Amino acid sequence: MPSQSAITLGSATTLDPAAALLQPRVDAGVPERLARSAAATDGGVMRTDAFAAWFARRREAHPFRVERIPFDRLEGWSFDGRTGDLVHRSGRFFTVEGLHVSVDEGRRGAWHQPIIKQPEVGILGILVKEFDGVLHLLMQAKMEPGNVNLLQLSPTVQATRSNYTKVHRGVDVKYLDHFTRPGRGRVLVDVLQSEHGAWFLHKSNRNMIVEASGEVAVAEDFCWLTLGQIGRLLHLDNVVNMDARTVLACAPVAAALVDGPAATPAARPAPGPAVTAPSTAPVPPADGRSTRTTRYTQALRRSAEPAAGALHSDAELLSWFASERSRHDLVVRRMPLRELPGWHRREDVVEHADGLGFRVVAVAVAAASREVARWTQPLIEPNGTGVMAFVTRQIGGVAHVLVHARVEGGFLDTVELAPTVQHVPGEFVATEDPGGRPPFLDLVLAAPPDRVRYEAVHSEEGGRFLAAQSRYLLVEADEHDAPVQEPPGYRWVTPGQLSWLVRHGHYLNVQARTLLACLNALVGGQ
Amino acid sequence: MPSQSAITLGSATTLDPAAALLQPRVDAGVPERLARSAAATDGGVMRTDAFAAWFARRREAHPFRVERIPFDRLEGWSFDGRTGDLVHRSGRFFTVEGLHVSVDEGRRGAWHQPIIKQPEVGILGILVKEFDGVLHLLMQAKMEPGNVNLLQLSPTVQATRSNYTKVHRGVDVKYLDHFTRPGRGRVLVDVLQSEHGAWFLHKSNRNMIVEASGEVAVAEDFCWLTLGQIGRLLHLDNVVNMDARTVLACAPVAAALVDGPAATPAARPAPGPAVTAPSTAPVPPADGRSTRTTRYTQALRRSAEPAAGALHSDAELLSWFASERSRHDLVVRRMPLRELPGWHRREDVVEHADGLGFRVVAVAVAAASREVARWTQPLIEPNGTGVMAFVTRQIGGVAHVLVHARVEGGFLDTVELAPTVQHVPGEFVATEDPGGRPPFLDLVLAAPPDRVRYEAVHSEEGGRFLAAQSRYLLVEADEHDAPVQEPPGYRWVTPGQLSWLVRHGHYLNVQARTLLACLNALVGGQ
Repeated sequence: MPSQSAITLGSATTLDPAAALLQPRVDAGVPERLARSAAATDGGVMRTDAFAAWFARRREAHPFRVERIPFDRLEGWSFDGRTGDLVHRSGRFFTVEGLHVSVDEGRRGAWHQPIIKQPEVGILGILVKEFDGVLHLLMQAKMEPGNVNLLQLSPTVQATRSNYTKVHRGVDVKYLDHFTRPGRGRVLVDVLQSEHGAWFLHKSNRNMIVEASGEVAVAEDFCWLTLGQIGRLLHLDNVVNMDARTVLACAPVAAALVDGPAATPAARPAPGPAVTAPSTAPVPPADGRSTRTTRYTQALRRSAEPAAGALHSDAELLSWFASERSRHDLVVRRMPLRELPGWHRREDVVEHADGLGFRVVAVAVAAASREVARWTQPLIEPNGTGVMAFVTRQIGGVAHVLVHARVEGGFLDTVELAPTVQHVPGEFVATEDPGGRPPFLDLVLAAPPDRVRYEAVHSEEGGRFLAAQSRYLLVEADEHDAPVQEPPGYRWVTPGQLSWLVRHGHYLNVQARTLLACLNALVGGQ
Repeated sequence: MPSQSAITLGSATTLDPAAALLQPRVDAGVPERLARSAAATDGGVMRTDAFAAWFARRREAHPFRVERIPFDRLEGWSFDGRTGDLVHRSGRFFTVEGLHVSVDEGRRGAWHQPIIKQPEVGILGILVKEFDGVLHLLMQAKMEPGNVNLLQLSPTVQATRSNYTKVHRGVDVKYLDHFTRPGRGRVLVDVLQSEHGAWFLHKSNRNMIVEASGEVAVAEDFCWLTLGQIGRLLHLDNVVNMDARTVLACAPVAAALVDGPAATPAARPAPGPAVTAPSTAPVPPADGRSTRTTRYTQALRRSAEPAAGALHSDAELLSWFASERSRHDLVVRRMPLRELPGWHRREDVVEHADGLGFRVVAVAVAAASREVARWTQPLIEPNGTGVMAFVTRQIGGVAHVLVHARVEGGFLDTVELAPTVQHVPGEFVATEDPGGRPPFLDLVLAAPPDRVRYEAVHSEEGGRFLAAQSRYLLVEADEHDAPVQEPPGYRWVTPGQLSWLVRHGHYLNVQARTLLACLNALVGGQ
């Protein structure tokens, strides 16, 4: 079967000088290098035990204050006289408008809600570079007004198009050139992924990982960390921000093993230092952790092996996804904010009489480290802490998680794959059983500690959402709690299959991507 | 590196009875079986030389008449009193509405046009089954009012949701159960793909290939053909309809070689008769055809090999696609048909004063073989024959085609990959140079016969478009005509890369998918 590079095939080919232009379609070395970085739980540039002090210094360096204000103290923002939409006078940034959402012709639910419209595509980019043979990621200590603790660890670049077209006349976005100018460095990941479908209308961002060529000067709020170091930080509450998590989820830790012409000699880079792929990495000593946890890590690693198998083949998974997308009718209609039934505008809030998940508020922000020193803006504030959980099982020794084909009003295409449980108190959801409890919520909330494989509280996008926290969990279940035979709208898939899908946009929603980043952290780290 | 099935890995695994539930993620046997079918240019069920007579008999069996009528003779259809939209009284099927399209804030073009809105997802499905070890496809001789010759070769099933929910009270759609009931047979392909973005708003259909389990009774208008037989028919004008072509494009002829855990022993089916994959099939004797053509076929086959390489790696290709999607602002706004500036409704046509690509007309159809015996409907009629062409080159002995990242108003997400040339006379297009000739159009139109690797006239969707024909071409170029360094918005990709992308929706537009089906036909056939 095919095994040689085209460059050496046939006389007509070898005579063609253009053969030198060809390159391997897939660089099988990338997942191996990512795995090596994931296994490095300490860094070659900044030691892990020095991180906390550095991060605290960054926090101190940027005194930062956020306060709720009434809408009439917004600067540049106002409610449009005709529509009541909340708009910026430049016509840019974003607007808060009204939306009518109807799922399956009213049989499964219809509701009205405000929604953020921000049609431009932003860039979330992480710059990577090898130090001592290990990939490090350039992370930023960045403040965002919606984060409960303000400062969190962010991608190298977090730029809206307004940022780089200078609509708000701020300073340059550092390192942006690495992501916008082709030819600077080497792109490892670049994919448009959706944002929160409950709060954003059709919003997507480019999730990028670019390997820098040449020297990179490290600016004040930036530091180089390995994937393994970030994996450890992912176990802490409210440290790694949402934008970093979604980019990390897209790292092809297992994807190239599964998604490409695996491991042909021609596609490998020149041999470097000994490489340990996650699938063959020795299982670390249990070291105080239970055998159960160790076995779960093994099952996770196994899911990255191409030959590991899965409950459903890739073709079956794609088919189920297509059928879920086509069996739902999602009709969304934009409408003026002022005409939203049940929603009322007060002095400092736009809210629904019954709560209904979230409200629209305004804040004033004063900070030294942002592109502009002071600004005001609207934010979406949810009514409570969310619960985002994958129920997970080992099936035949291979880790599986139970994904849910979820309809959200702001999705570009009806359905994306969501966590087993995605629950924000009071939020409208199109469910099979509108009156009932969300499936698996009680299982997750009542899980005994020895079933919880991962748990941390993370913030959602702090640039648009105020104190929007969610408890992210991986909860191991058994046949009794979560049978192999799934209920309608759910499927058992392996983390390896999720890594395969996340190379393309609009398969995994942003909450599922956070959990995929956490799964990857469990595989790689110790 | 990983090579064993998970079922045999580790003691914890072998003890798990659930291991039996696992299956290989990818069946590497599928592309080989498709290749065997593509190499079979004669059929085990219907001989190729018998096809023409059978097809002619089908045509005679269904006397069928289509005539243009004025709008007031439409039955069940009327112009809405308020909006002027053309609607059906059931509220189903589709509507013709108005659209304002603006690309890149007016700098690159803005226009008004009627558009078909049909939010439901249809099914285009081909049933396959092995006879004497060779996969055959169940194809249907189906009449559609817009086809110039009315009867064309169609997928097994072509069903709108109206079809199967019986909105028009017709007869059952034959074989539909194979595609809508999970568990009947085995799904090889199932992906949502876009329809014409110039004429449909956000329309997509499920493209499915299902392998039947058990006996399949062959109904009157149906026949079993190999991929090789259909490949030969693809060289004829107006025989293989658009719905068949788009499903054929999605057949994973090379995809699994490239897109999956290639060729692990566990993933292979039990050895059957000797299999000849396209990449290693002996090149047939030139047999009157030029050496140039033979070399081109070789280059095509090479592009299906995972190790063949490409001008751009898969990661670079995805990155370019993400950047093309995000660099364009496409703003579409639905508006009442009656308010479209420049468009006028006459007794029997809605048209623009300047032509502008197409008009809306109405027809009466009388046919015996359709679900209902007589009906009237609106159709879109383009003003001329289109030209759809891939400019193609052999780079390092590997076939490449020049794709164009094209903005169309009806696309769900701004941009899809289109042929190098996609030209319908008079049609509005967002181009880099609004005043200029479409790039590469003159190259294609002036190509000498020895540069034309493929040429045939095909109809677009005959259920919605009247006499919408396009000349589909593959035109080989050299460094002078089409340099390796592409102009903005274009990229050289291999057919193997297109087969990899087409497993997912919204990468290739419907015209590019027709050309991919033709490329596959060149690889497989003789």
